Amino acid sequence: MAIVHEVVVRLVVALLVVTLLSGPICIFGKQSQSALRFDRNGEFRILQVADMHYADGKTTPCKDVLPEQVPGCSDLNTTAFLKRMILAFHPHLIVFTGDNIFASDATDAASSMNAGFAPAVSANIPWVAVLGNHDQESTLSREGVMKHIVGMKNTLSQLNPPEVHVIDGFGNYNLEIHGIEGSSFANKSVLNLYFLDSGDYSTVPSIHGYGWIKPSQQLWFQRTSMKLRRAYMSKPEAQKAPAPGLVYFHIPLPEYSSFDSSNFTGVKQENISSPSVNSGFFTTMVEAGDVKAVFTGHDHVNDFCGELTGIHLCYAGGFGYHAYGKAGWARRARVVVASMEKTEKGGWGTVKSIKTWKHLDDEKLTAIEGQVLWSKSSVGNASSLVP
Amino acid sequence: MAIVHEVVVRLVVALLVVTLLSGPICIFGKQSQSALRFDRNGEFRILQVADMHYADGKTTPCKDVLPEQVPGCSDLNTTAFLKRMILAFHPHLIVFTGDNIFASDATDAASSMNAGFAPAVSANIPWVAVLGNHDQESTLSREGVMKHIVGMKNTLSQLNPPEVHVIDGFGNYNLEIHGIEGSSFANKSVLNLYFLDSGDYSTVPSIHGYGWIKPSQQLWFQRTSMKLRRAYMSKPEAQKAPAPGLVYFHIPLPEYSSFDSSNFTGVKQENISSPSVNSGFFTTMVEAGDVKAVFTGHDHVNDFCGELTGIHLCYAGGFGYHAYGKAGWARRARVVVASMEKTEKGGWGTVKSIKTWKHLDDEKLTAIEGQVLWSKSSVGNASSLVP
Repeated sequence: MAIVHEVVVRLVVALLVVTLLSGPICIFGKQSQSALRFDRNGEFRILQVADMHYADGKTTPCKDVLPEQVPGCSDLNTTAFLKRMILAFHPHLIVFTGDNIFASDATDAASSMNAGFAPAVSANIPWVAVLGNHDQESTLSREGVMKHIVGMKNTLSQLNPPEVHVIDGFGNYNLEIHGIEGSSFANKSVLNLYFLDSGDYSTVPSIHGYGWIKPSQQLWFQRTSMKLRRAYMSKPEAQKAPAPGLVYFHIPLPEYSSFDSSNFTGVKQENISSPSVNSGFFTTMVEAGDVKAVFTGHDHVNDFCGELTGIHLCYAGGFGYHAYGKAGWARRARVVVASMEKTEKGGWGTVKSIKTWKHLDDEKLTAIEGQVLWSKSSVGNASSLVP
Repeated sequence: MAIVHEVVVRLVVALLVVTLLSGPICIFGKQSQSALRFDRNGEFRILQVADMHYADGKTTPCKDVLPEQVPGCSDLNTTAFLKRMILAFHPHLIVFTGDNIFASDATDAASSMNAGFAPAVSANIPWVAVLGNHDQESTLSREGVMKHIVGMKNTLSQLNPPEVHVIDGFGNYNLEIHGIEGSSFANKSVLNLYFLDSGDYSTVPSIHGYGWIKPSQQLWFQRTSMKLRRAYMSKPEAQKAPAPGLVYFHIPLPEYSSFDSSNFTGVKQENISSPSVNSGFFTTMVEAGDVKAVFTGHDHVNDFCGELTGIHLCYAGGFGYHAYGKAGWARRARVVVASMEKTEKGGWGTVKSIKTWKHLDDEKLTAIEGQVLWSKSSVGNASSLVP
């Protein structure tokens, strides 16, 4: 009996040790699986695809194109543009910022998503998506749409942060972009990406219009930002300021109305369709101190970037051919390129600059309106940025 | 040995039972101790005291009074006004909405608070306080000031909600006002009061000016409001809409700038000194759906109430004689009276109406500008409200 007892005790102890160890092992496993990092040339490239409005593919016609473009124009033009952008820009990450499917015209939400995201999936490139205000209008709820996305191949999208039990919306998560493999920043997040669900429509009778980012989401963002800041400013390679952050969601903030052509780059050809109320997320981001730029979609024929209190507020401009647009004004995509600095010893350091521009869906995928969003020392000259 | 063993086991079990029971017993004890309820005449009366700016008492001179008022005028005039208001209005609760002491002139923060709050303490009336932007400028930090307040006699102030581990500021809490003793609402909160710390100054270099209510505070408010709504709309006496809520803090929200004399009651004699950013608390309150009015201080010579999206935004007007003011424009206090409805069977029901007006510190404590903030059916006629 005593031997049996000892065996049982040892088994329990062994199980406990395994359980305790497997926690961190699992966590590391998950992290390395999803680890994004700067490439060996010191770049991290992000392609933003706003408002694909994908529906049923070949049978879904284009909207707002020139008369000569109408024949044969369909969702497949959106697919072709995405494929060309992937081949030309070689993104390390593709971000779909909502209204990925135009669900009221989509016969089956899952099929539309599968077809819309297909170029990203088959190119074997990590991709993520957030929800717009139209994604839930077909056969799946917002939760259902986000769950489908999370289950797709090559995506790093997440339903919601695991450590938060109650958060508004679906698809609030963040990604850490690590330094170059083999460099002293290989295990540190040097660029932080945040993705949020900006909702669809107000459910409050006395507030009309679009949804907004809620306190539960802001608190999650705030705490995540603080946690990342602490890690970045701690040893090894303790930094003096937080790593730059970029935020992606669908509906523009009320602060997007702060600009006119005198203080933005790009165009404003329609009203800013932000929520009719201010839910304070801009303030929360300014307070967090790490966010350098916000990227939304929603208003297809606005594509400007304007800077307010140290944060650039950027539109992507409409990407999808089944989305409303402006005939003769090319569909477009916004890209972001973050670049690493070389250290004095010739190794790789942290992020030196973050630039953005747009590519038009024309023959040459013409790049326009390059600008520096942030640089480690000071904001540089915007000229000669376009590759 | 077996007997000893049994005795030990029984002792442990007994201790466990006592421990388990003592939890709820303690909680009930705390609740009944702090239970506020409508009086036997169906009223609950709240006296708001804004910006006492108490310093050293008799030796602290008055500011901005008429030349003939200057001799002998001091903090004691503030004390006298408070004593007279207590005697005349018989409040069930006194709310001090910050800048309770003008700390840069107060030799000792604790002594100034003891002297300033003394009329409430000695009248044996429940009272609460929140922090303004000046309270921490003397010998105590904001936390120290709030801890001192919480330790004082007859106060229901709390440092922060016990169930929240990280919340910004000091002095975020709520009070439930129960129905009339013996009525079927005796154990239900029929009127909810929320108190928040609106901060002092921005600590973000790119944002100038005053502090603001943060996401952590808004989430606490939102969850508290939801919990209260659920309880009120559940059996027994399940109601169809949430109980009305009133919110008290120091610094006015940016939305206070939405009004002019055409759509408010009272006066606006200085700019709205809200934070330079919008942190979304107004949106959060509208979404919560129970808040009928917000009461702040901070701008001493504004005393208006204006309604926006179903919420009245009210100033109290300056109360304290050591606070800046306007000579010839009387120091004043805002009061709120919530009234119960009679049921068809002649018993007491829930809250029927919430009214407000101001009392001037003149010979007759003249009541001015009465208005209905909320009524269960529809907003009534504002005339003949002033008692």
